Amino acid sequence: MTVHAYGAYAGDQPLEPIAITRRAPGAHDVQIDIAFCGVCHSDLQQVRGEWAGTVFPCVPGHEIVGRVASVGAQVSSFRPGDLVGVGCLVDSCRQCADCEEGLENYCDNMTGTYNFPTADAPGHTLGGYSEQIVVHERYVLRVRHPEAQLAAVAPLLCAGITTYSPLRHWQAGPGKKVGIVGIGGLGHMGIKLAHAMGAHVVAFTTSESKRKDAGLLGADEVVVSRDPAAMSAHAQSLDLIINTVAAPHDLDVFMALLKRDGTMTLVGVPAEPHPSPAVFTLVGKRRSLAGSMIGGIPETQEMLDFCAEHGIVADIEMIRADQINAAYERMFEGDVKYRFVIDSSTLAA
Amino acid sequence: MTVHAYGAYAGDQPLEPIAITRRAPGAHDVQIDIAFCGVCHSDLQQVRGEWAGTVFPCVPGHEIVGRVASVGAQVSSFRPGDLVGVGCLVDSCRQCADCEEGLENYCDNMTGTYNFPTADAPGHTLGGYSEQIVVHERYVLRVRHPEAQLAAVAPLLCAGITTYSPLRHWQAGPGKKVGIVGIGGLGHMGIKLAHAMGAHVVAFTTSESKRKDAGLLGADEVVVSRDPAAMSAHAQSLDLIINTVAAPHDLDVFMALLKRDGTMTLVGVPAEPHPSPAVFTLVGKRRSLAGSMIGGIPETQEMLDFCAEHGIVADIEMIRADQINAAYERMFEGDVKYRFVIDSSTLAA
Repeated sequence: MTVHAYGAYAGDQPLEPIAITRRAPGAHDVQIDIAFCGVCHSDLQQVRGEWAGTVFPCVPGHEIVGRVASVGAQVSSFRPGDLVGVGCLVDSCRQCADCEEGLENYCDNMTGTYNFPTADAPGHTLGGYSEQIVVHERYVLRVRHPEAQLAAVAPLLCAGITTYSPLRHWQAGPGKKVGIVGIGGLGHMGIKLAHAMGAHVVAFTTSESKRKDAGLLGADEVVVSRDPAAMSAHAQSLDLIINTVAAPHDLDVFMALLKRDGTMTLVGVPAEPHPSPAVFTLVGKRRSLAGSMIGGIPETQEMLDFCAEHGIVADIEMIRADQINAAYERMFEGDVKYRFVIDSSTLAA
Repeated sequence: MTVHAYGAYAGDQPLEPIAITRRAPGAHDVQIDIAFCGVCHSDLQQVRGEWAGTVFPCVPGHEIVGRVASVGAQVSSFRPGDLVGVGCLVDSCRQCADCEEGLENYCDNMTGTYNFPTADAPGHTLGGYSEQIVVHERYVLRVRHPEAQLAAVAPLLCAGITTYSPLRHWQAGPGKKVGIVGIGGLGHMGIKLAHAMGAHVVAFTTSESKRKDAGLLGADEVVVSRDPAAMSAHAQSLDLIINTVAAPHDLDVFMALLKRDGTMTLVGVPAEPHPSPAVFTLVGKRRSLAGSMIGGIPETQEMLDFCAEHGIVADIEMIRADQINAAYERMFEGDVKYRFVIDSSTLAA
């Protein structure tokens, strides 16, 4: 089946309309009519070849929401018409320790939603900037938000779970002081989620202009990280920092804000390395610098349900498919509050 | 009271005999006749000014064992003649959260055994390369090893606790695969301790020549880290790595050996930073890069008791005080198995 999509034929080419094929649904497959797809910073990094190994044509997109169009004969959990989501992965080995624990995101043979090897044509996965996708039921999430919020649910599938998972893993909650570095697509979700979990949230931004918005998102305090006095007022006080900034920057100024035994978790992967973190800042207070990558399928469902229960969605700006290249430029400049979402009905225009 | 010691008057000067004064014991003080003092890599780094802030004259030494000479009127836990030890700290604020938890080593106002401000002359602490030391009873450890082992107990006070504490904190034990990077003063203790805790121990060294010795120390496996095939045989298999190497090196090759959720803990502080660790190696398996610094007083006592119970001491080479400069050169070259210990009776020679 051929569907409309948007993709690029090379790293230095803009995205353009492209026709792709989707496999006929197998017994365990769910065929989804995509309604909206979020635009993640990873999309830009992958399609432009800033990350190694991009295979072309590249159709990005892993913040997918829509309705079930049809299901395979063996699918019992989903029915046509159901509101569903697909996130960053569409398959995994299903038998390693990671998969058995529901941490398919850490499976060595995880299949990402785009740019990963697959038996389907053209030999690598093609993402959510398309009208339809066909996914094994194990990797399909149920959306329990009201349908009117569907577009704003899309970014939860990556930006939401990427911050939710480390917040849960490192036990954000009442009595904990949690920092969120960067108020962008990931960071604005991190603030909302940490606040909903009951933590005391400190947002760190380089822009004084984001102060008010951060408070509206749920931050208890906002610190402009270029201000050394404002930073040192929080020295040794944070239990956990989720650092969403995907550009190289000085990690030490944030590490120094952690309490003894505190952890800073990186969720962004810069194309060039950060300046090397100071060893003594780790050693002197038994601090940890960690990383976390999206989340497993059970935890992604848990996150979606948590968000539905707490009325949490992303703050989005809707775009037409033909605005994607301009949106990338604006995203690169940080000029979006806070996530672009493609209206999939415009892919065929 | 004036006693013989060895110290340096400048970072580019050798150590030489020096007369220092010790305070008269106060009500809570323990006056100790030092029998032996271990020679730690930190001694060299501090006295040569490789670490910032060295105050001269500098008398290093924080692996101190000896006998109680006298005690203050309020001291009830120690009596003259007791075998005791003093490690890396001789005071702290005694009222912060760290001190209350017995983690005085992380107290912001911890007083190191040398080179820290003190009311005693000459205004900074002077370490264990001396005949006597006077220490508040809270910071004095009891030695339960046989007296014949006393010299070999000395290095436990730094090399021992520096590896014991992270092994306990990150739960080394049966069923865990633990790596020890570097087979020197710290590393050889790390191997012995992790083995005694019941972990499966993998020692990493750059020297094929250390293979046999590492096995004798208790390593179940020995890997020459320059051998990529030998390294990749352990990919994603280790729960914990204690990295004792205090020189800048590629951390990623070791991080890649950690399982998902594994931690590599740095216990050495290089004068220059390590190459920046790859973010994706952290993110891709939710790994942590951590640091740990010596240990608190209760845990140091626990470590000494654990070692006495398991018959663990350091492997040492005894030196006279006038051999200290030559010993530094050999230590700098890695030519010691595995710790020099000064016979304090030679300080007056």
